[in-house]
Amino acid sequence: MKGFFKVQTPDQLYKKMGRFKPLSFEMVSIKDSHHRVLAEDVTSSVNLPEFPRSTVDGFAIKAKDSYGASEKNPALLRVIGEIPMGEISNVEVKEGEAVKVATGGMIPKGADAVEMVEYTEWVDSRTLHASKALSPLENVIQVGEDVKAGEVVLHRGHLIRPQDIGLMAGIGKTEVRVFLRPRVAVISSGDEIVPVEDVPRPGEIRDINRYTIVSMVEETGGIPIFLGVAKDRFDDLREKIELGLKESDMVVITGGSSVGTLDLTVEVLQTFEKTEILGHGISIRPGKPTLLADVGGKPFLGLPGHPVSAMVIFQFFGKPILKILSGISSEWVWHQMKIKAKASRNIPSVPGREDYVRVKLEERNGTFWAHPIFGKSGAISHLVRADGLIRIGINEEGLEEGEEAEVILI
Amino acid sequence: MKGFFKVQTPDQLYKKMGRFKPLSFEMVSIKDSHHRVLAEDVTSSVNLPEFPRSTVDGFAIKAKDSYGASEKNPALLRVIGEIPMGEISNVEVKEGEAVKVATGGMIPKGADAVEMVEYTEWVDSRTLHASKALSPLENVIQVGEDVKAGEVVLHRGHLIRPQDIGLMAGIGKTEVRVFLRPRVAVISSGDEIVPVEDVPRPGEIRDINRYTIVSMVEETGGIPIFLGVAKDRFDDLREKIELGLKESDMVVITGGSSVGTLDLTVEVLQTFEKTEILGHGISIRPGKPTLLADVGGKPFLGLPGHPVSAMVIFQFFGKPILKILSGISSEWVWHQMKIKAKASRNIPSVPGREDYVRVKLEERNGTFWAHPIFGKSGAISHLVRADGLIRIGINEEGLEEGEEAEVILI
Repeated sequence: MKGFFKVQTPDQLYKKMGRFKPLSFEMVSIKDSHHRVLAEDVTSSVNLPEFPRSTVDGFAIKAKDSYGASEKNPALLRVIGEIPMGEISNVEVKEGEAVKVATGGMIPKGADAVEMVEYTEWVDSRTLHASKALSPLENVIQVGEDVKAGEVVLHRGHLIRPQDIGLMAGIGKTEVRVFLRPRVAVISSGDEIVPVEDVPRPGEIRDINRYTIVSMVEETGGIPIFLGVAKDRFDDLREKIELGLKESDMVVITGGSSVGTLDLTVEVLQTFEKTEILGHGISIRPGKPTLLADVGGKPFLGLPGHPVSAMVIFQFFGKPILKILSGISSEWVWHQMKIKAKASRNIPSVPGREDYVRVKLEERNGTFWAHPIFGKSGAISHLVRADGLIRIGINEEGLEEGEEAEVILI
Repeated sequence: MKGFFKVQTPDQLYKKMGRFKPLSFEMVSIKDSHHRVLAEDVTSSVNLPEFPRSTVDGFAIKAKDSYGASEKNPALLRVIGEIPMGEISNVEVKEGEAVKVATGGMIPKGADAVEMVEYTEWVDSRTLHASKALSPLENVIQVGEDVKAGEVVLHRGHLIRPQDIGLMAGIGKTEVRVFLRPRVAVISSGDEIVPVEDVPRPGEIRDINRYTIVSMVEETGGIPIFLGVAKDRFDDLREKIELGLKESDMVVITGGSSVGTLDLTVEVLQTFEKTEILGHGISIRPGKPTLLADVGGKPFLGLPGHPVSAMVIFQFFGKPILKILSGISSEWVWHQMKIKAKASRNIPSVPGREDYVRVKLEERNGTFWAHPIFGKSGAISHLVRADGLIRIGINEEGLEEGEEAEVILI
């Protein structure tokens, strides 16, 4: 059934992605949780710190003993001991007394502030001059000031960063529930595509998309499984797609010829149960001949064969789907790293389609300038020279020289 | 020899990092080269494409046959065949003739342009109306237009991205020479530090820095080797540092108490041959008690024990050193991901030291606002809430509400 599919806008297709759901979860050690997505809210069972700590090297005192102190009129304090790091001390600070404490050390009973060592001077081996007046709690971090017992410190859907692992370590959480990393089957197709090790005969080209798409899956947190190059034949395509659907959570195929392969792919998909074609053709450049389907709940993405088109479409359609499967919170699904830059020359665009223009960035006196790299969409070297993409909306007519735009970094 | 070390500015210390050199290299398959650093210039031995290709689905013709064509006055063309994808064809296009070709297909001899299928209409099974006038080379990508044989396509010191792997695949480069990933020994120290699995007694705290620093080493491309928690004793410190210097390319230690441990560490370092203390104390907040040394050519970084200070210093000192060892080109060693934002309130700072203020970002109508997160530097939760850091230079007095600043994303 070679259907005629109505070209849709990117937004129409984005809305249909909401049907895909996060995968299941697993427990991992926090040391293996970097770049994983939290599948639970993390609640602290302890206060952090669990005891009052000094934030400086100095002397724990009663703040009121320092009131009015100055360099000319220092307070006189009797040093009654020292708090060794990591040890319990029952020493209690009374009026006029001081206890030596290091940064991070426990504030002894009775004390409520720490005079920094820089503002002290020994008078004799047991007596100190303190020249700075302190307010209560100055240089002290109180129990629970960092984290309170019972507080939710990290939320489900959060992408775990180094500081998040640090916080989990701090509250004694050794294992954490994270979403499974999506397995993504990657298939190249096209009669003209040969493996990179082969010397292509005239008319043949090496398989570029395998490498770009696999790397992009990896950098989005997925586990790529490359299934090889399919010939433009029903049986070969069906066999690889069936294997992909069986072994993975998402299937991505890059088409050889833009029309033929994806039409054939649609026919193949129709032979699986519960296939729904969500889109075939997007008003976007590069990347118009894109195919998105839901095959029994699993996303299936058919990308154009041209390497630049395939990368651009994977960036804006493949990555969000992968993030949804990864359980990432919805505001981050659509997140792109971008910076503002000015167009170094006019960048024309045809209204009625979304345009992604490859640009090279140059910084001059703190302002970024975006130089468009024009050229035919098959040229992988253009993406290598590019630092990012400027999106020109479906109803816009391009950018004028000097106009500011957002550059999506790639 | 407990020395007194003069506090240096961050810039003074940055300059001294130039003494460290990239490690050796290894050959890897291009599929394993993502995020690695090129240790060679990559030169293409082939043209890309290697044959002239169509960028559209349509009919290869002589452009001059379409001159003057329009919807009302289409050119008449005789279709003499089709170029199957990936196959050689000896068909030659003569005046008035057309050959069917798919996107990416080879342009047959004699043809110099491709009429898109959208502008054609079959008159009968062998005859076509073409309604769009073409210029020569329209919709054709020529031999070498993407990459020319002999061209340097990627340079030594480049961090390899998906598109770069794609380009290497395209030119048939299966293996590539990359710099070795630096092995980084990570040591925690401090008598009060206990492993995360333990329940700390009063005065003790769990080891946070192990997790944050190990993750930051990983995200900078290094291979972390955690050597455990050292007690604040000469022998224990020396044993772990010796092992670190033997087994790795860089050693990072996080200090327990800010003064004591790093002083002791300096003593330990002096017992190794060819030790040069490059800095001990930086005019920076947080992170003043930082130690940088060169031990027989290997960088040694002593970080403050406070988790926030340790992360900030690793971000601005540890990462650049790691990038130098990784062979990354010099303009990228100092690269930070940053965006511009306006201060949501006054952010004071004391001149005479570089200040890194933790901020949370909020986007309102396309403008980012940076909300400072004030608090004591020991609070790991502040870094968890933060999206980035604002640097306030050594001679600056802070930011006023509404003033624009760069936020370094963390």
